[in-house]
Amino acid sequence: MAQTRERLVEAARDLFLLKGYHATGIAQILKTSGANSGSLYHFFPTKEDLLLAVLTWYRDNIDEGLLQFVYARIDDPIERVFGVLDGYRQLLLILEFEYGCPIGNLALELSNSHPAARTLIRENFENWLAAIEANVVAAQDRLPLDTDPRALALFTLTVMEGAVMLAKTYRNLDPFDSAVAQLRSHYDRLLAEGTEWSSPRPLPEPTEHQDESIQHS
Amino acid sequence: MAQTRERLVEAARDLFLLKGYHATGIAQILKTSGANSGSLYHFFPTKEDLLLAVLTWYRDNIDEGLLQFVYARIDDPIERVFGVLDGYRQLLLILEFEYGCPIGNLALELSNSHPAARTLIRENFENWLAAIEANVVAAQDRLPLDTDPRALALFTLTVMEGAVMLAKTYRNLDPFDSAVAQLRSHYDRLLAEGTEWSSPRPLPEPTEHQDESIQHS
Repeated sequence: MAQTRERLVEAARDLFLLKGYHATGIAQILKTSGANSGSLYHFFPTKEDLLLAVLTWYRDNIDEGLLQFVYARIDDPIERVFGVLDGYRQLLLILEFEYGCPIGNLALELSNSHPAARTLIRENFENWLAAIEANVVAAQDRLPLDTDPRALALFTLTVMEGAVMLAKTYRNLDPFDSAVAQLRSHYDRLLAEGTEWSSPRPLPEPTEHQDESIQHS
Repeated sequence: MAQTRERLVEAARDLFLLKGYHATGIAQILKTSGANSGSLYHFFPTKEDLLLAVLTWYRDNIDEGLLQFVYARIDDPIERVFGVLDGYRQLLLILEFEYGCPIGNLALELSNSHPAARTLIRENFENWLAAIEANVVAAQDRLPLDTDPRALALFTLTVMEGAVMLAKTYRNLDPFDSAVAQLRSHYDRLLAEGTEWSSPRPLPEPTEHQDESIQHS
């Protein structure tokens, strides 16, 4: 029975991504999952219950589904940020622009009409932001002292969502690549400024960072 | 009769924006427009025909519906760019985060399933990009020589679409304001660099710009 529930969530997840929430019919979910309607209504009395389960799945699988794949290959925290963005680029390419960001799609389709879904969509964004913010914090000694890691993470998410939307519409990677290159130039300028500012800092391999006191000087 | 067609397009435009395309029913379009179903099917045999008319309306009304409102108040081309972004901020605020960018919403909901709509969505984005690009070109003597106006316009659109999506999801302006502030800091850095680079340029009020020859030097 637990497997049936899982198959239903996975089928709905993939169909919502490909077709959107409203355009996905119950019959397609049953067909794709191989479950019968009794099971469906047992686990998910309404279509919205299934939506909430899909959003919960995404929220709880950001590590296995997205981050670990990138982090296994890349150590540098700034490169990890762009590695995550590259993951969306690969998705767009491999799946021929049919898929975008699953959360972003549902955010625009449902955020007005489904308050419970909106809460889970926000939790998904918060998870993503926390991951990017942690990378910015890990690179903070290379960035200007007044860098706000949360704001830079939010800017990165903003660019990713906009870039995926444009790539889907244009059905090519040009707008995505152009926007990410501009974001990269923004990070590069911050890194160049950060290097300037950090020159009076302690030399490499200090036992403890003095950033706090530097920030307030 | 022309008025009835117009009323149908306006009703559909507003309902698609508030509820999305799939979630809007024919009955609601008839009720909001005050038209009868005979007129509806006369002008728009299918719901998709109505969608295409709405996207055509947006495409042909970017000046009256968006730009002129901003340009009447603001002369500086860079401030015009941020004035256009501020227009979306006002929309989010006044309409309590129910509306976002009408084109972005339809882009994510329909770009896979409706190729004809996708073409018109792209034309809408192209109009918006041309307007922003014209402002960047108008400010080009204050920007670094290697600034690509099209790429900077595309980056601006990307940030706007992502920022509107996040504001709708969070139902507050914080993510929008934060992303636009980051974009502003990107423009500010370009303007600061541009001022540096432009110092060897001709003094104000040259009869003709020599940018071409400078670029190739």
